[in-house]
Amino acid sequence: MPTDAEIVATLSEVTTATITTILLKKGLRNVWLRGTAPLKPGQPRLVGRAFTLRFVPAREDLATPESWSSPKSTRAAIEAMPEGCIAVAGTMGVTDAGIFGDILCGRMKKKGVAALVTDGVVRDLAGVLASALPVWCRGAAAPPSVAGLTFVNWQEPIGCGGVAVFPGDIIVADGDGAVVIPTALVEDVVKLGPEQERLEAWIMSEVEAGKPLPGLYPPNEETKSRYEAFKSGKRS
Amino acid sequence: MPTDAEIVATLSEVTTATITTILLKKGLRNVWLRGTAPLKPGQPRLVGRAFTLRFVPAREDLATPESWSSPKSTRAAIEAMPEGCIAVAGTMGVTDAGIFGDILCGRMKKKGVAALVTDGVVRDLAGVLASALPVWCRGAAAPPSVAGLTFVNWQEPIGCGGVAVFPGDIIVADGDGAVVIPTALVEDVVKLGPEQERLEAWIMSEVEAGKPLPGLYPPNEETKSRYEAFKSGKRS
Amino acid sequence: MPTDAEIVATLSEVTTATITTILLKKGLRNVWLRGTAPLKPGQPRLVGRAFTLRFVPAREDLATPESWSSPKSTRAAIEAMPEGCIAVAGTMGVTDAGIFGDILCGRMKKKGVAALVTDGVVRDLAGVLASALPVWCRGAAAPPSVAGLTFVNWQEPIGCGGVAVFPGDIIVADGDGAVVIPTALVEDVVKLGPEQERLEAWIMSEVEAGKPLPGLYPPNEETKSRYEAFKSGKRS
Amino acid sequence: MPTDAEIVATLSEVTTATITTILLKKGLRNVWLRGTAPLKPGQPRLVGRAFTLRFVPAREDLATPESWSSPKSTRAAIEAMPEGCIAVAGTMGVTDAGIFGDILCGRMKKKGVAALVTDGVVRDLAGVLASALPVWCRGAAAPPSVAGLTFVNWQEPIGCGGVAVFPGDIIVADGDGAVVIPTALVEDVVKLGPEQERLEAWIMSEVEAGKPLPGLYPPNEETKSRYEAFKSGKRS
Amino acid sequence: MPTDAEIVATLSEVTTATITTILLKKGLRNVWLRGTAPLKPGQPRLVGRAFTLRFVPAREDLATPESWSSPKSTRAAIEAMPEGCIAVAGTMGVTDAGIFGDILCGRMKKKGVAALVTDGVVRDLAGVLASALPVWCRGAAAPPSVAGLTFVNWQEPIGCGGVAVFPGDIIVADGDGAVVIPTALVEDVVKLGPEQERLEAWIMSEVEAGKPLPGLYPPNEETKSRYEAFKSGKRS
Amino acid sequence: MPTDAEIVATLSEVTTATITTILLKKGLRNVWLRGTAPLKPGQPRLVGRAFTLRFVPAREDLATPESWSSPKSTRAAIEAMPEGCIAVAGTMGVTDAGIFGDILCGRMKKKGVAALVTDGVVRDLAGVLASALPVWCRGAAAPPSVAGLTFVNWQEPIGCGGVAVFPGDIIVADGDGAVVIPTALVEDVVKLGPEQERLEAWIMSEVEAGKPLPGLYPPNEETKSRYEAFKSGKRS
Repeated sequence: MPTDAEIVATLSEVTTATITTILLKKGLRNVWLRGTAPLKPGQPRLVGRAFTLRFVPAREDLATPESWSSPKSTRAAIEAMPEGCIAVAGTMGVTDAGIFGDILCGRMKKKGVAALVTDGVVRDLAGVLASALPVWCRGAAAPPSVAGLTFVNWQEPIGCGGVAVFPGDIIVADGDGAVVIPTALVEDVVKLGPEQERLEAWIMSEVEAGKPLPGLYPPNEETKSRYEAFKSGKRS
Repeated sequence: MPTDAEIVATLSEVTTATITTILLKKGLRNVWLRGTAPLKPGQPRLVGRAFTLRFVPAREDLATPESWSSPKSTRAAIEAMPEGCIAVAGTMGVTDAGIFGDILCGRMKKKGVAALVTDGVVRDLAGVLASALPVWCRGAAAPPSVAGLTFVNWQEPIGCGGVAVFPGDIIVADGDGAVVIPTALVEDVVKLGPEQERLEAWIMSEVEAGKPLPGLYPPNEETKSRYEAFKSGKRS
Repeated sequence: MPTDAEIVATLSEVTTATITTILLKKGLRNVWLRGTAPLKPGQPRLVGRAFTLRFVPAREDLATPESWSSPKSTRAAIEAMPEGCIAVAGTMGVTDAGIFGDILCGRMKKKGVAALVTDGVVRDLAGVLASALPVWCRGAAAPPSVAGLTFVNWQEPIGCGGVAVFPGDIIVADGDGAVVIPTALVEDVVKLGPEQERLEAWIMSEVEAGKPLPGLYPPNEETKSRYEAFKSGKRS
Repeated sequence: MPTDAEIVATLSEVTTATITTILLKKGLRNVWLRGTAPLKPGQPRLVGRAFTLRFVPAREDLATPESWSSPKSTRAAIEAMPEGCIAVAGTMGVTDAGIFGDILCGRMKKKGVAALVTDGVVRDLAGVLASALPVWCRGAAAPPSVAGLTFVNWQEPIGCGGVAVFPGDIIVADGDGAVVIPTALVEDVVKLGPEQERLEAWIMSEVEAGKPLPGLYPPNEETKSRYEAFKSGKRS
Repeated sequence: MPTDAEIVATLSEVTTATITTILLKKGLRNVWLRGTAPLKPGQPRLVGRAFTLRFVPAREDLATPESWSSPKSTRAAIEAMPEGCIAVAGTMGVTDAGIFGDILCGRMKKKGVAALVTDGVVRDLAGVLASALPVWCRGAAAPPSVAGLTFVNWQEPIGCGGVAVFPGDIIVADGDGAVVIPTALVEDVVKLGPEQERLEAWIMSEVEAGKPLPGLYPPNEETKSRYEAFKSGKRS
Repeated sequence: MPTDAEIVATLSEVTTATITTILLKKGLRNVWLRGTAPLKPGQPRLVGRAFTLRFVPAREDLATPESWSSPKSTRAAIEAMPEGCIAVAGTMGVTDAGIFGDILCGRMKKKGVAALVTDGVVRDLAGVLASALPVWCRGAAAPPSVAGLTFVNWQEPIGCGGVAVFPGDIIVADGDGAVVIPTALVEDVVKLGPEQERLEAWIMSEVEAGKPLPGLYPPNEETKSRYEAFKSGKRS
């Protein structure tokens, strides 16, 4: 099993497109977090273990500004986040209230959290961008989280974007959005991902050279031989 | 504080329409479980404490027929249900897979569960109806729950129909659907509900007698006096 | 121009299916109120002039139980409804709060309102059914209208089910749902509807006799001759 | 491979719930036609080969009443339907226009079509019910199909309810809705379905006798032995 | 009561995030216009009184290019707009037709309209951007408004983004989107907003200095004292 | 009838806003592809004949990586695309799987395809942007097309964005999105478009000069005269 540092180093070079293809071949079709996108164009690919945050819809007797001081608050959750984790917040489809603004994102950044990924939205967009925390979300809404959401707990299994996420699953987020890799499949993805990227880069160079697609992608035997020759040549 | 038996006896005579009006006056607007309706027309009004079931979306590596034997299974949850409770299952909007069919509903009925309330759907509609368990849901779908859902745990806070439900909250379900009464507000509802029903029945009799609405509903001072006189007369 | 009594008498025998076909041939494609259905199976076809009710989403400072006594209330609107009208309530897609319950529906019935048609929902379903007012709607929800809606005014142009409805337009509602006939087109529909129904009934009898569809529906020249012969025979 | 008569006879006794469970175990999760339900409560389970109808959204220059006489019309499609088939119509989510009314359903009934299954709606609900053709659909809308749909062709691969349906696939429809069985998997389902039904009926009798779920459903080794003994006893 | 100039000057420095928090504490949860976002990144925060525009869905007999010359046209509405107002257009969820293009936006800009806010879309995106009118909307669609919408009137109460907006309400729009402040609450927001912003800026500086969240945000007594000391120091 | 080169040259100077207005006047209201937008801001307006691609939802037995080598594959479709065409892919609302990534878009670019227009999404956003193929779509998702879609065929009638598209229809895509011009109406649009653009540019210049809208847009007789004078002056 690779170390977390090896996982991060390797998967930082593998697209979510490649990862979802590998997981599909292993029989996993529901690993893509629907509806979450980079808040800022050009955010780099980020990899980390999921630190989950669970919300349920607001109830006026519970979801009040006062609840922010409760021991089961988002504040306490943030203080519990380890460096390098990716915070994943499941909001059950509520996009009318921003889960976090500049102050909470600023604190996450200070704590060394790698990224925030949510199927909800953030608030105070300008402030969140200024905090420099990389965020994947569905946009922005000004109302505070208690206007639409009640925070329940952290590090529980959650649903996010129509996908189950468990604490400790590996999350990879890039320009397309975010994917979850179940712990048991991380080793496979780390092993297969880089070679798949190399193959696709070579195929892309063939496309640029004018080769037609049939037989090239996916590669037939002749193409595979040429690719092997290319790799040998490169090595020699 | 009324006993559970008193709560059930009293609220069985109070419509969910009246309960939501009382809760609105207390500042609670989000207590109505959206999208859940009686599976069978004419189901009686049912009242009980919420026994919550939490699902997240399916993940192919977890949501398998094999998972049905795991200790965190829906089967174990059902065995833990006390007599008279209302099982409330939150499905995060998944309506492509039935959470329970005839066998599980049959066992709930045997255990004395008062009703099943869910924002999801059941499967094997004919079998569920034959089990005689009263169900409030969004309809039926044949696929097993593992086709779309992963069961996580029981007796946790959940979202159901866009509303937060905590274990032990009072649930009332009738022809309109289902409402949650937070524990701290049950006493108020039990106190105010029956009198509101009496008042509305009297107003309805006035409407049937041809009285116009302004001044009648809501009642002005003159109407209130007439109602008080009616109540005195009835008592005398 | 036919009288209202003639319109009601004639269109009570014409299906909404036939009416929408006639309006389509006149270039009107958007006359069908989406999402509204008979509350009770077997409600008879009803015809009347639209009496419109306009709601906007709730605002907590306005949509309170106290507002029910304001001069711009739903109560005042109901008192203004003429006998035989069809009340059409536009709710802007809000289905979390019932616009009317037993008392208001009971008063409408007393006033001789022909039907209530809405793209929203009613509350206290059992009570509404007991009031005997025919209702077309999207279902039921217990919360009072002020939980989700603010009443604005009556007899203004509204949107209902994705369609513009103006005060005085003719509404026809039957088992399929409800259609609006703009005033300027009523005469055409009254003229063409009954004959279209006769033709389709005859075609249906031909289908029952085993005739294939091509040439029969829509009728070619030969079929039209046979139909004319049938009509002459019937008359002679 | 079983004959079509054997398929129909066998699967008429197997619920769609059981069929989707068997297909899930074979790796097929997307075989359930979302959003289609029996038009009339109590329709019997029906089984047949899919005869597909493909619609695309309406275009005013094409989708006219005149198009009903074109050779690529729904009328010609109906005449091409073999006895015993199940017509499956894909409508791309359009529910504002009814695909068929009484006349076309009446002709399908005459032709011996077993059922109509669609993710769209029908028109002239009363007439369709009177035609006695069993229908699975999403409800009713009065406007003619050309108001929202353009018919393209028959016996092509279609999407219906979020599922791919190919001409000749087996369709089973019952109280829960409709499922597609790809041709290559029919034999498996026919073989495994009846035994699964027998097992579940026996488990249900155990539930009725008060047995708890763990170990019973799914059955552990002890339960399997008891079931085998039950079957032997029955046979002897 | 502050003057309009004071309102604009003050609230231009208060985020919509802060405003919605203040309104929530006053009991208003439904003041956020869902689904409307700045058309152009970096648009400055804008404040003004709502000038409302009401649309209903299109009806082919009314919504024609000819209607553009009617006295109840969008053109007449624009000529009636006072300098500094924010035009708020409610479209009942129609996003298939652009409410305004370059010419109408250009005229609004000429008239000194501060901004256009809508839950609908604009057309001729390039032209609208060239007009330099700041716009908050849901995107762009080329078809003219009459393809999907009928204009009804101006300066009536409307629904926009699921919120009630009355003529003269204060609108604030910034990077997160747009919020409505009911007239009766403007004074409170003007009074509380700037201080809340100062407090949050100081808290953010504390976060940047590495302080943990519990006790800081929301501030406990010790934090409040430190903040008061900071303010005194700043003043002295 | 204009040549394709003339169509492209002329319509490259006509906005989709103007085209949809012209088509509306001809009675075509449903020609706008909903939900598709330029992938990259600033993409130039593009014009070409539709080369259609038809997808249906995924079925696990068919939609596999192996299917990419089948003769009915997207690869074969791309090789069949003529230079200058606009590929239009209908995805039946599936946005959880990207239809194409960098390699397929790169090959389309090589083949001289003018643009890709889809109501679905692409995958490997960075790679697609690097391919330089202009794309109109609903965003990005990493999973491969087979995770959600089964490719059926090319050059068949399709639905895309709620609109019927036939092979050979003219597609125009610009900053607002994409419109389809049925073949029979191309000549009209080519004839009327440029003059409409000239008129609107002149009206815009009048707006910039401070003219009020009534009488100007749409132009009354006096405005039309001034415009004619302007045109004469320009020509002389």
